[in-house]
Parts: sequence; structure tokens; C-alpha cells
Amino acid sequence: MTYSVEWHGDGLRVLDQSRLPLEERYDLLRSVEEVASAIREMRVRGAPAIGVAAAYGVALAALQSEGAAPTLRPLAVEAAISELERTRPTAVNLFTALNRMRAALCRSNAADMTSTLIREALRIHEEEKEATAAISSLGASLVPDGATVLTHCNAGMLATAAHGTALGAIIEAYRQGRVTRVIATETRPLLQGARLTVWELLKESVPVTLITDSMVGHVMHTQDVACVIVGADRVAANGDVANKIGTYGIAVLARAHRVPFYVAAPTSTVDLSIRSGRDITIEQRSDDEVTTVSGHTVAARGSQVLNPSFDVTPHRYVTAIVTERGIISMPYSTRLREAASGSSGRGN
Amino acid sequence: MTYSVEWHGDGLRVLDQSRLPLEERYDLLRSVEEVASAIREMRVRGAPAIGVAAAYGVALAALQSEGAAPTLRPLAVEAAISELERTRPTAVNLFTALNRMRAALCRSNAADMTSTLIREALRIHEEEKEATAAISSLGASLVPDGATVLTHCNAGMLATAAHGTALGAIIEAYRQGRVTRVIATETRPLLQGARLTVWELLKESVPVTLITDSMVGHVMHTQDVACVIVGADRVAANGDVANKIGTYGIAVLARAHRVPFYVAAPTSTVDLSIRSGRDITIEQRSDDEVTTVSGHTVAARGSQVLNPSFDVTPHRYVTAIVTERGIISMPYSTRLREAASGSSGRGN
Repeated sequence: MTYSVEWHGDGLRVLDQSRLPLEERYDLLRSVEEVASAIREMRVRGAPAIGVAAAYGVALAALQSEGAAPTLRPLAVEAAISELERTRPTAVNLFTALNRMRAALCRSNAADMTSTLIREALRIHEEEKEATAAISSLGASLVPDGATVLTHCNAGMLATAAHGTALGAIIEAYRQGRVTRVIATETRPLLQGARLTVWELLKESVPVTLITDSMVGHVMHTQDVACVIVGADRVAANGDVANKIGTYGIAVLARAHRVPFYVAAPTSTVDLSIRSGRDITIEQRSDDEVTTVSGHTVAARGSQVLNPSFDVTPHRYVTAIVTERGIISMPYSTRLREAASGSSGRGN
Repeated sequence: MTYSVEWHGDGLRVLDQSRLPLEERYDLLRSVEEVASAIREMRVRGAPAIGVAAAYGVALAALQSEGAAPTLRPLAVEAAISELERTRPTAVNLFTALNRMRAALCRSNAADMTSTLIREALRIHEEEKEATAAISSLGASLVPDGATVLTHCNAGMLATAAHGTALGAIIEAYRQGRVTRVIATETRPLLQGARLTVWELLKESVPVTLITDSMVGHVMHTQDVACVIVGADRVAANGDVANKIGTYGIAVLARAHRVPFYVAAPTSTVDLSIRSGRDITIEQRSDDEVTTVSGHTVAARGSQVLNPSFDVTPHRYVTAIVTERGIISMPYSTRLREAASGSSGRGN
């Protein structure tokens, strides 16, 4: 069976997403350092999956510390949490999951620390599975009959370590017989759409058409796109959505073509402490991701390069946000607060 | 000296743009078949450059036919024109140039056919040089002081076999001290921005920042983009603009951010016979261009692929069209007709 992240008692098995679709390789990570590298290098990626993997990383730190003096063990785990917090800045699920692990660490003692942290990580993973199953079902209800649905990047099983958010909803709607075709953007620079979303959809036998990011306008203008569904890396309290670079442009085009623009994301992605998208830190990644493809140089050398990994879509472009607790539309400020504040373990 | 297309008496030397920036290789094309292949495979590309190369291709056909019976020679040249017309469908300059060559063929006789056709091709090339010089100068006047200018694809020396249109204007504005920075989109699938525009701007020492096509929205939202300037492959009588895929999305984003969106194109690109963008044929190219980069597979295999090479930007998104005969703004229908109908040799 295919999965992106799975706990194996004393290690975390992860599907190396950087090698897909050419190679389907699983690695067994046995230390928090290995988990941190996998997140940093985007071998594990996608906001919910990063949160889940980081939680297991903390559990691994507890396991690694078992030979140490009891008084030092919480410090080692706390250091591991700090290391994991520095891996990637934008997806809030990472911080939400690590805060929950920190709280679990506080309520544990030397005797039960490892088991408490493993249990909490498994619970976070289980909750993602339940949340994404609910999101898939709710999101599918928004898709009309015979729909062509457009999605960007990868918000599927790979990104969520569970059923997928945007892609979960699309696959569920397909199973219900309502999706004719999915348009997947390739999602430069790292091509998660071409590599991962196409791969996931073909595995589920969903008809998928690949386009470059630059074709979205033309496709909306010439084809009958029923709706856009994308995931999110962080949703601010006012409903502004940080998601993979390119999402904002798609939202503006969707508005120009009167195409509904839906965001599918668990409440673990909602960050009530962030007032608006302006305050969301946007990760800047290496120039190489833009100037090379699969290790081959594709650009003339010597220019400056920008490589923001995410952009912010202002809430006025978002038709609705599909969470596991319901479909939320404007006014987002009050409705997101209601939905997200019931969330367990929230607190940064 | 660098050039994209140059006549050498009995052959056409072209810079192979498909190898740039890794290799700066010139090929001497000695037959119309070689010219047709170079256009089809986009070793020569860009609407004005295609027109110029095709005109020289007809001249080569006349040279090639010199051993044949005098009555057969016009048929051979006419067949060459037909072959060249089938190379690429969207850029109108190709058809405009070939119509001029056909007219020159009609007024020539067996004795002066070759020299007449060579002279007409040289004249077309010379006119592009004059037109793009005028466009560069007029376009530069639209750029405010200290401007960050965004451009898409490549509308430079390479694309025009002359001074460039959009890029000509940008470089001229830079020489006048008014451009701080150029943002160049990489322009998937064939990366003409990353490969060619960055290369041209660095040769001219213009500060250039490369982004993926998906970053345009984020860049307009977070940086102070003064204006967008792009080229065109065909301008309809109502001002709708066919240009490299992705242009339309940039125009919609420019409007959302109140950024002026300028199109720089010679009147040879204006097609008064086409009422609106709806009637412009959009070339669909091979799937491989999307699923591979530099010969390396980047997408999961088995999906459908769309690869429209161009899109249409409705004239309502176009702030002005810079032609060699002046800067044209709304209402385009009347003003484009005035500007373009004075054009010599026009007639399909």
C-alpha cells in the first residue's frame, strides 16, 4: 500500500517525494536529525504531512534519549523540537504539531516519556486522517456534475499523510461520478503537480490533464472549468490563505472568469494568532530550484533569482474554505474562529 | 557580433536558439527545407524573426531553383512559400512576409527572380530593424524613472532579428537611466525567458531577476512593478493580442494591481483581417515540451497534456500597443486600422 509517512515502532518510514515519479522509494528514518533533513529537503512535504512527520521526529528524539540521564532527556527532546521548528517557516501545521508534542512532553515523566510522545504523534496522525476524510467528503459536495476541476501543486495523500485535502475532495467527487477531468498545474519550481498530483490521480484512475502554470488563464478562457480546489499551508484569522506559489494568480484568474475558488484545509492549518496574510512568513528557497530542473541548468547564468515558495491569496478571492468542521465562507474572521477554536491542542 | 538571422549571399546564418544559453552556435541554412525545419523546431523563433527567416527561405528557394526550367521555377518557389506557411500558425508576421514574397515573385521574371526575391527579403529585414528601433524608442518613453519592469517570454533581438520590441524598449529605457530592474518570467514550457531574455539582458548589462511564471502574482503584490511590457505574435483588428502562453494571466494580474500592461509590436504583427482574438489560430505543440525539460522526464507518465503555445489577451486588459507608427490606445479598432493600413505590402 502507498503512504507518505508511517510509524514503525522505532522508526519513521517515509516515501521520498523528491524521487517521484521516477522512483518509489521508502526510507526508514531513525533519528530526529534525519526527519529534519527530510522536511528541509522536501522529501516529506505538504503542510499536514510535515506536521505529522515532525511529531514522529519528536518521538524519535525521545527514543534516542533513552540512554541519557533522566534530567537531561527533556532537554534533548526540547532541543529536537527547536530543530524541527527551524526546518520550514510557512506551514503552520509544523508549529501546531510541535506545540502539541511540547505539551505532551511537559505532562510526561521519565518513565513514560517515550510512550507518551509516540502516543501523541500517533494521535496527531490519526486526527489528520479523520480531518482529511471529513474534508474529502465535504469538499466533494461542492463539485457539480460533469465537472472539470483545476488544482495546483499537491494537496493529496502525499501532502497530508492521510486522505488528502483538495485532492481528497476531488478523488471523492470522482468516485461519486461527478468529475469528468482534473486539470493539474505542473507547479514550478519543484513540479509537485506534474510529479505528484498526476501520479496520485493516475493511481486512482482519475482522468488528469497536465498543464504548465502559465496555461491557467487560457484554460479558464477556453475550457469549462467548474471550480478550483487547492490546499493551504497557513490560513490567517481573516481567511487569507498562504499556499504554494502560483495559487494567488490562479485565484485572481478564477475571479475574472467567475469560477469558484475553494481552499481545502484542516483546522490545524488555521492560525488564529496571525491576523492577516501580510504577517505570514514566506519561505525563500534556493536559486537552484529555479535555474535548474532535475539537476540540469535551464537558465542563463548570472541573473538574480527570486524563489518564494508560497504566496498569499487575500480572502476576498476565496469562495469557501473546506475544513473538517464544515464549509466556511465569508465573513471568515468570525466563522474561522468558531471552527478553529474548538481544535484540540491549539496554542501558539 | 551577436545576431539571430543574417543573410550571407547564398545562405542564411541563424543562431540556434534552442541551444541557448548553453551553446552559442550559428548554423548556415542553404535550403528552404532547412529554414522550414529551423522555424518548426523553434531554432529560429519570435514572430518578427520568423517572418524575416521565412522571407530569406523563399529567396533560398529561388536560388535552389536556378538549374530548373524557367517555367517551373515560379512553381518551385510557390511550393516553398506554401511549405513555409505550414510551419507555424499563430504569428502573423510569417504570413505577411510570405505574402510580400509572393507578390515579389509575381512581379519578377526568370532573369531577375532570384535578385528580386533576395532584395525583397532584405527589405523586409531592414524594415523590421527600422520598426523595432522606433518601437524601442517609443516604448522606452512609457517607462517611469526608477522602474521595475516585468516581461514575459522573449521579445528581444533574438525574437525580432532586429532591435527587439518589448525588450528593445526595456533596454532603451535602461540606457536612458530609468530602469532599475527587469523581472523576467522563465516562460514554460520552452523557457525562453530563462534561456533567452536573461541571456540578452545580461549581455546588455541590464539587472535582471528571474522568476517562474507562477510568481508573477506574488511579485506584483510584494514588489513595486511599474509596468509590464510584452511582445505579440498577432494583434487582431480589435486590439486583442495573441502572445506566448501565460501572457493573458499576467495581463489579468496587472489589471488587479493597477499595473500598466503594454504590448510592443510592429504593425507587421497587426492582422486587420482578424476581427477579434477568438478567430486567431492557437498552435498546439507536442506533449513532450511539457512532460520533459532538456530531454529529462519531469512528469508522471500517462496523463493527458495540453500545450497551447499562445493565449489571447482581450484588448480591455491592454493599456497601450506600441507600434513603430506610434503608441496606440483605446479605441483600438479605429486606431489600429489607421496605423496598420499605411503598412507597405500588407494584404492577406
